[in-house]
Amino acid sequence: MSSAHTSKTALRVDADRLRADLEALSAIGATPEGGVSRPSFSDAHLAARAWFLERAAAVGLETQIDAAGNHSAILRRSPRPDVRTLLLGSHLDSVPGGGRFDGALGVLAALEVLRTVQDAGLEPCTVLEAIDFTDEEGTLVGLLGSQALAGTLSPEALRTPRGGRDALVLGLERAGLVERRLAEARRDPASLAGYLELHIEQGPKLEQMGVDIGIVTRIVGARSFLIVFRGRPAHSGTTPMDAREDAGIGAASFVLAAREIVMHDFPSSVATVGDVRFEPGAFNVVPGSARLALDLRSPDANELDRLESVLLARARAVAKAYRLDLEISPVGSWSPTALDGEVRAAIGRSAQALGLSAFDLPSGAGHDAQALAPLTPSGMIFVPSVGGVSHAPGENTRWQDCVNGANVLLRTVVELACGREPGLAS
Amino acid sequence: MSSAHTSKTALRVDADRLRADLEALSAIGATPEGGVSRPSFSDAHLAARAWFLERAAAVGLETQIDAAGNHSAILRRSPRPDVRTLLLGSHLDSVPGGGRFDGALGVLAALEVLRTVQDAGLEPCTVLEAIDFTDEEGTLVGLLGSQALAGTLSPEALRTPRGGRDALVLGLERAGLVERRLAEARRDPASLAGYLELHIEQGPKLEQMGVDIGIVTRIVGARSFLIVFRGRPAHSGTTPMDAREDAGIGAASFVLAAREIVMHDFPSSVATVGDVRFEPGAFNVVPGSARLALDLRSPDANELDRLESVLLARARAVAKAYRLDLEISPVGSWSPTALDGEVRAAIGRSAQALGLSAFDLPSGAGHDAQALAPLTPSGMIFVPSVGGVSHAPGENTRWQDCVNGANVLLRTVVELACGREPGLAS
Repeated sequence: MSSAHTSKTALRVDADRLRADLEALSAIGATPEGGVSRPSFSDAHLAARAWFLERAAAVGLETQIDAAGNHSAILRRSPRPDVRTLLLGSHLDSVPGGGRFDGALGVLAALEVLRTVQDAGLEPCTVLEAIDFTDEEGTLVGLLGSQALAGTLSPEALRTPRGGRDALVLGLERAGLVERRLAEARRDPASLAGYLELHIEQGPKLEQMGVDIGIVTRIVGARSFLIVFRGRPAHSGTTPMDAREDAGIGAASFVLAAREIVMHDFPSSVATVGDVRFEPGAFNVVPGSARLALDLRSPDANELDRLESVLLARARAVAKAYRLDLEISPVGSWSPTALDGEVRAAIGRSAQALGLSAFDLPSGAGHDAQALAPLTPSGMIFVPSVGGVSHAPGENTRWQDCVNGANVLLRTVVELACGREPGLAS
Repeated sequence: MSSAHTSKTALRVDADRLRADLEALSAIGATPEGGVSRPSFSDAHLAARAWFLERAAAVGLETQIDAAGNHSAILRRSPRPDVRTLLLGSHLDSVPGGGRFDGALGVLAALEVLRTVQDAGLEPCTVLEAIDFTDEEGTLVGLLGSQALAGTLSPEALRTPRGGRDALVLGLERAGLVERRLAEARRDPASLAGYLELHIEQGPKLEQMGVDIGIVTRIVGARSFLIVFRGRPAHSGTTPMDAREDAGIGAASFVLAAREIVMHDFPSSVATVGDVRFEPGAFNVVPGSARLALDLRSPDANELDRLESVLLARARAVAKAYRLDLEISPVGSWSPTALDGEVRAAIGRSAQALGLSAFDLPSGAGHDAQALAPLTPSGMIFVPSVGGVSHAPGENTRWQDCVNGANVLLRTVVELACGREPGLAS
């Protein structure tokens, strides 16, 4: 049975129920290294989403899957017909070989908040919707579901997705989604009361400062590029070194240069070549082509422009130096985004009321809140990541910190949905 | 009908029949780029091998598959019970995304020689065996079939194969081969009269010199290593550049260093990193590991030792500099090999008798002859490669050069199997 209390001030999530959910979810797509691997529309990802709706239906919540595949559990209590919806969400997909908390904690805490409010017999003035957004991590596109909901999913993003067009088409088919209908997931801003997301920090700051709760001020901008160096495949025994057009040498040179450039000239940015593929990829063939996955991040839009310009110029110089052809495809662009001041203040009040320390900080990772913020007042609650580890099997957050985060989310929901913030609650 | 002539001096292969075979074979595993992709035990490779035996059986030749999967067509004419076998061969597997001639020409010319001898009603003093060796290219092991036949396939090569242990086990199963029985393919040297292989040069020298036929003096030594840099997977947005243990940076640094070292200090050697794989391989994850396929070649065994030592020391230095762990697995080693002087002389006489220019040259590529040479007198005939291109879809040899090579092979076979070389013919 629920241990939630009915008094508003003493209201707490049921930590045992939340923990049981996290453990059950962590088993879906579990990896031997202790993490999870649930890339978009993989078997494990689809199973996790189905499990989420089952958990919601089991306690009598409405469930819904929209045209972009976003999965929702809905608590509808207000008798008013024009009632707005307060969204609470995150995502159940993971990077390949990822951790158990990234995204998952936010979705499970959202569900737990709905159950707690329902168990307590509260009657919020908004609909509460716990939403699992499609393809946040960008195995395929990145923020696919949240951008579709916000009406900002561009045709370009679908034409040249990060994961490749073939993988996207196949993935949508696996999930039973229809590409030309994705945009139908769009919500009218007037129908929304706001968006809240609990997430692990994925960096070391909160832990280093000994702070319980992070209140996210803004989210960095990010850009993704697929860069292909093309040379000439050749026999690795008979082709003299100086006669080669070795695409792998171009790739290696660019990987090192990108690191040097960002470290020396762009101290507030990061650049990562997260994947490299040689073709045909054999011991005895000089690589004919090399495909690189380049990810750039900066809190500042102008700096991001400059970084992009300098790195792509370097790619061109490398290609020229090694007699290679070059293709550069932009496959993702997410602007730096500020989060809502009033929502941030409400999160701060909640933490304070719960006796938790809180600190304002920017997010170096992208989040669905980035897509939601232009649409509706949005806020993010961070909890500490042990050692700052994320996107790795060793990703971890102390259990008490998970519970703290869920309770801050709960309290903020209660305030926004029922309380003193007329700009948000209907 | 065959256009082969029955007079020994005027004996020629049936160029039309050979061409029809090459065209039919090129369709098996054909790629859109105009080459073929028939990696060991792929569907295309198995289909090509089955097609070869069908072609042999269609003209009444014996067929045989040995314990290492080597496929043979056999012409047995001598009534003597202690007759030896003259092997003529090459391989039907290809590198991924390879060309139509590498290996294929040698197997088809061998088959054509048997048919020509049979059509002419010659009675060679040896059995003639056209053999398609298993896994020459080393998608799995490298010279697997020819080493098994020579009795030099080491347990180490099977334990740590170039293509990975899992791929080897799966491949053997697909081909219906039993690992512990591979060694049963071993032949008694006393049963063999020699080995001849026609092959494209895969380099530019013959074409540049305007020479018809290459007589191979020796084959370079080669070593393969699988090198794994291991760092720590991390979030590409939240992990500061200087806090990363980025395996991709180690890989890139080594790829560039290997090229510099071999170009500056080992002018007669080559070094290639033909494949690189990052794990987990995503835009938003700092690479946790990077696997490299390193291939070294040198005509000189001592230089190969020294090159190996210098490059592996550099790999260790790179790992240390970037705080990475390092694993180095030797996955292939083939000694520099000299080919037989008498067989070379016989090839030279054949070219001369046919009015073709010939030139002695070493092979920078590995070949099955490398495994056969320690077992039985072995020789190789090269024909020019257009532009020196090989291991690529654009690999090409002018048709007249293919026919020339097949006729030199035929004439050398007739001499060795029936003629004046008592050391070779029974």
